[in-house]
Amino acid sequence: MRQSKLFTKTIKETPKDEKSINAQLLIRAGFIHKVMAGAYDYLPLGLRVLRKIENIVREEMNAIDGQEISMTILQPKKLWQETNRWDESIGKEVMYKCKDASGKEVGLGPTHEEPVTEIVRQFIHSYEDLPLSVYQIQTKFRKELRPKSGLLRGREFDMKDLYSFHASIVDFEEYYKRAQQAYLKFFKRCGLEAIITEASGGDFTKEYSHEFQVLAPDGEDTIIYCPRHDFSQNKEVAKLSQGDKCPNCGTKLKSDESIEAGNIFPLGDRYSKDMKATFVDKDGKTKPLIMGCYGVGPSRTMGAIVEIHHDDKGIIWPESVAPYQVHLLSLGEDEQVTEFADQVYRVLMDGDIEVLYDDRGDKSAGEKFADADLIGIPRRLVVSGKTVADKSVELKERNGDKMRIVKLDNLVREIR
Amino acid sequence: MRQSKLFTKTIKETPKDEKSINAQLLIRAGFIHKVMAGAYDYLPLGLRVLRKIENIVREEMNAIDGQEISMTILQPKKLWQETNRWDESIGKEVMYKCKDASGKEVGLGPTHEEPVTEIVRQFIHSYEDLPLSVYQIQTKFRKELRPKSGLLRGREFDMKDLYSFHASIVDFEEYYKRAQQAYLKFFKRCGLEAIITEASGGDFTKEYSHEFQVLAPDGEDTIIYCPRHDFSQNKEVAKLSQGDKCPNCGTKLKSDESIEAGNIFPLGDRYSKDMKATFVDKDGKTKPLIMGCYGVGPSRTMGAIVEIHHDDKGIIWPESVAPYQVHLLSLGEDEQVTEFADQVYRVLMDGDIEVLYDDRGDKSAGEKFADADLIGIPRRLVVSGKTVADKSVELKERNGDKMRIVKLDNLVREIR
Repeated sequence: MRQSKLFTKTIKETPKDEKSINAQLLIRAGFIHKVMAGAYDYLPLGLRVLRKIENIVREEMNAIDGQEISMTILQPKKLWQETNRWDESIGKEVMYKCKDASGKEVGLGPTHEEPVTEIVRQFIHSYEDLPLSVYQIQTKFRKELRPKSGLLRGREFDMKDLYSFHASIVDFEEYYKRAQQAYLKFFKRCGLEAIITEASGGDFTKEYSHEFQVLAPDGEDTIIYCPRHDFSQNKEVAKLSQGDKCPNCGTKLKSDESIEAGNIFPLGDRYSKDMKATFVDKDGKTKPLIMGCYGVGPSRTMGAIVEIHHDDKGIIWPESVAPYQVHLLSLGEDEQVTEFADQVYRVLMDGDIEVLYDDRGDKSAGEKFADADLIGIPRRLVVSGKTVADKSVELKERNGDKMRIVKLDNLVREIR
Repeated sequence: MRQSKLFTKTIKETPKDEKSINAQLLIRAGFIHKVMAGAYDYLPLGLRVLRKIENIVREEMNAIDGQEISMTILQPKKLWQETNRWDESIGKEVMYKCKDASGKEVGLGPTHEEPVTEIVRQFIHSYEDLPLSVYQIQTKFRKELRPKSGLLRGREFDMKDLYSFHASIVDFEEYYKRAQQAYLKFFKRCGLEAIITEASGGDFTKEYSHEFQVLAPDGEDTIIYCPRHDFSQNKEVAKLSQGDKCPNCGTKLKSDESIEAGNIFPLGDRYSKDMKATFVDKDGKTKPLIMGCYGVGPSRTMGAIVEIHHDDKGIIWPESVAPYQVHLLSLGEDEQVTEFADQVYRVLMDGDIEVLYDDRGDKSAGEKFADADLIGIPRRLVVSGKTVADKSVELKERNGDKMRIVKLDNLVREIR
């Protein structure tokens, strides 16, 4: 992509109405645009990042046998009344509700236990159909009172929610562990180290749920955790404190702020009983399905990545989710430089490298360097009068200081 | 995908509450699931089709320099008041409205002229930034009173909407023509022949808009058109009738039912004036942006494809949008057949062919044939006792009667 064609521009001033680092940097760098508190448009650079995160989570969900579907945002009242969650709990607290043309009330899905169970009870009738896991990547809505953490807490946000259905608790527990590993892998691939943390089951279950917490100053949560990551509890439910011994390995526990980047819940038969989602087991008896649910927000993950990977100049994207793999800068208006930079751009494109090419004629070297640091693409390539002579570019990692000269002939190999 | 793992099952009975062919067949074949009138979940097969249609339209929009973004569904009242479309016209007639946690009203986007203009007026200030076109593929909402055409008219539906911005009418008109060609190409790639049809600008403009109409019995619209497709008007605005001469080529005009599969609108400065979205032109003068908007619904396109490509046994997907390229059926429970079918499945997968593999042990040949016809994958491959002996499969096109025997060694080449 030629940056001269990209319609977004970086913004120098920090937006006054944003307190969070992620919203400040993402807005300044032109990744997102604020529509209202807790609701952001994704601009070209931001949408590329979001789609990459979605694709990583899709791969990990497919790897644990998830079948992808896409459920509606509009929710019928009747369905949520089956579990008493229309007038109570989540339906009362955070569900947006509006009226359709005939005056009937409909809600906007804040989560999808009811609709997914409705689908599954139509198709699944026997233990032979189990286990089953289905997921979607879709927009969700919650009436947050005062969202102020950028992409970390939205009124409208992107969500990957997977639901699993089992014939027995034993089978469920085995899958729950597989899902935990898939989640850890997802976060790792996005450049985040998540700590599995026991937490309240909230509205979903009376058992512990498990959160995936990422240590971050300014995180909304606090966790009591073992530095070896074999134990962690959300402060809200923790019975141990900082300095106590880890029940698993004896190491001294720590307490720190963190971001809840994902969460998973054992649901048992809470929903399947109310909704009569049953199956005939091997023994010929009709039983309610055993369920689990597993949520991670690609948009929230994007916010968490920025909270953790940035410096005072801007964002530092991990390669896996960066909007482009390299940021090519052409410095000066010398015709030879432009020609050679164009050639480098073509060579990279032919090599299937994703390139943002700063070909803007009206920007100084200083402005281009500042924009590159703010946007945060992992590798910066500079073409200037100096480099043209020996057909090379200057390569610098966003997350490092060293520059080195790479010959054009070796460039694609070097970057792959 | 092994069909034994696919959680959806085909349904024999035609759903009683669905009048349209597309909803009847898509529900029976397990592509979609009805949540309420005008709102459907996409099940695994359906989501694959929808994503393919989205990708085709994405390619065509990128080819006319569209930059992809994703705007919010939630819409602030204040923004729509700038154009007087909150209390009047579209905001009054079809916009869902709800209250957020603080009691403020928000709408669900039925279209996105206001929000896109809001973004553009922030970034675009000079003729040098123009022309610009941006698009999104996103969920939209309209309070339809009685949606009864399946995916053809939804309360919640998938939409690709592109908006273009220009410094002059001349530049706009040139782009508008390019967009028309891109739309025709999109429909053609989806197996639809669209006729560009003059229609009312409705809420958007006082000029003609242009609809892309696809001839179909049971279509909601009627067009007066030249069989040579160089003239067409929606009956609602037509001044000519069936039998009149085509003003362009003199051929006798026809009148037929059709489906409006897409539409494009010249917007002039209707929105940019109200919203003060201006730029400084070459002559130093500040002028309002000239706009166009271009809409096509991937979900509606999916419905239109089914309306046109089906027979009394089921759907007949065009290859470009089929959920899988081939449907492999293993007949009988003979171990040799299963082993060979498994081998064929692996060979196809290794050849990067998308396969739905009917490996179900509890289904008769008749049931498998009926399901294959209903689901409508373009090529059916049968492995049976007869074909195992000479390491071959029986190939039949969904849209044809002839069967032929293909050796496994030639199969991948044959299908590519």
